[in-house]
Amino acid sequence: MPYEFDSQTEVSRVADGRYAAELSPGWLVGGGINGGYLLAVIGNALRDRLPDKPDPLVVSAYYLSASTPGPATVDVDVRREGGSVATAAVDLRQGEDVRITALATYGDLGALGDDVRTTAEEPDLPPVEDCLPSSLAPPEVRAIAPLMDRFDMRFHPEQAGWTVGAPSGNGVLSAWFRLVDGREPDAISLLMVVDALPPVTFELGLPGWAPTLELTAHVRARPAPGWLKVRHQTRNLAGGMFEEDCEVWDSAGRLVAQSRQLARQPRG
Amino acid sequence: MPYEFDSQTEVSRVADGRYAAELSPGWLVGGGINGGYLLAVIGNALRDRLPDKPDPLVVSAYYLSASTPGPATVDVDVRREGGSVATAAVDLRQGEDVRITALATYGDLGALGDDVRTTAEEPDLPPVEDCLPSSLAPPEVRAIAPLMDRFDMRFHPEQAGWTVGAPSGNGVLSAWFRLVDGREPDAISLLMVVDALPPVTFELGLPGWAPTLELTAHVRARPAPGWLKVRHQTRNLAGGMFEEDCEVWDSAGRLVAQSRQLARQPRG
Repeated sequence: MPYEFDSQTEVSRVADGRYAAELSPGWLVGGGINGGYLLAVIGNALRDRLPDKPDPLVVSAYYLSASTPGPATVDVDVRREGGSVATAAVDLRQGEDVRITALATYGDLGALGDDVRTTAEEPDLPPVEDCLPSSLAPPEVRAIAPLMDRFDMRFHPEQAGWTVGAPSGNGVLSAWFRLVDGREPDAISLLMVVDALPPVTFELGLPGWAPTLELTAHVRARPAPGWLKVRHQTRNLAGGMFEEDCEVWDSAGRLVAQSRQLARQPRG
Repeated sequence: MPYEFDSQTEVSRVADGRYAAELSPGWLVGGGINGGYLLAVIGNALRDRLPDKPDPLVVSAYYLSASTPGPATVDVDVRREGGSVATAAVDLRQGEDVRITALATYGDLGALGDDVRTTAEEPDLPPVEDCLPSSLAPPEVRAIAPLMDRFDMRFHPEQAGWTVGAPSGNGVLSAWFRLVDGREPDAISLLMVVDALPPVTFELGLPGWAPTLELTAHVRARPAPGWLKVRHQTRNLAGGMFEEDCEVWDSAGRLVAQSRQLARQPRG
């Protein structure tokens, strides 16, 4: 039995550079399909198109319209291939509507050097068993977010005021994360993980879903098996928009992905 | 007399969605033309193509090959226009070679709401007169970086060890910034400012220019006139690559631009 993440993000080649996908209703959230899931679908099409560059190094996605469950087409246009990296433009469409237009550079994360000089600090999360499982999220949140059933998330108890109607007012949200059926993380699933948690604006007392205008993810290493630590932060909500930074750390204590998105402030 | 930034980033329409530009040798750095300057050229083409959406909200640029002084063509393909924002794909070419492929969303920064809930803190810089002018940069740096003559930069003295061969080892570099001829900042020039300082890796003891793979900039407000504060930071140098985050604050104390780039580690 394949894991649900793999069967639901699968693409099949229908022509050179063209892929068919079936977007699963299990990833609905609010009025559309989760942007991270869609990035993983795109990621699989790119991986097939660039067989000797298996890993996303950076992906920038612009969300043009909300995706719905059902068939989709992914078109990959390789813009430059040569040396150790390749860059491609990608469109995800449903019918005539472009849902996402993206650029991506792929390479081989296994072939990179091992010089590490990081000052980033691993998120400080209490042990998994002392964190709050996503199953405790308010029923009104779970009702509009079937995607939460895909995940086992354990929220930092001091950053989970939103679950009981008492948001901290700080722009930080962090959690342990794994897929509910035990599917281990890899470079493609990290594209989904960076957009999996509830919007960090929940902890600012702004409930409601925050539409992403643009999300850029850097995948910095192939993750080790096991729980991931995911930390979201916003520092600047202004002019009806906010940036949301995400870090993903693996069980070996490495910063494996960083992302930033620009999103519209929830009407809340 | 137009300011040099305006005359050197000017584009002229040669067909619907196609623009001609003349890349100036004054923006050379290392083996190519500065990526921020190129973003501003692209930014002017987008502004012309989208007259009622005058401001960049977000631009993601993928650098495919090094640009050289001389003629260039910018092609703008509007992917979606409707409501308050428009998204376009852009290529900057020289001859047959694509130098940059980019995506951008434009809007009207003057029409945004004024709700601000920021926790970001303004960079702590000593007064301009107590900072180190860029004219003190080592001659070998200035020789390969004519673009430094475009700027009046005043570096934080505690983050300028690289100027005297004694880098701090911290991944932070900040400076006061203005254009040398007094041209005031605007939403387009911010696209240049986010990539104007020396690579933050200078302060890690890794001299040499750091080629950008991808840079995404968010412009969050139109800047007030006067000096800008610019702060660069890297937190994760690993696998031969590093991320560089940049913040730009205006003289009114507002965070007006944020950017992140993924760059290759200098060979040092």
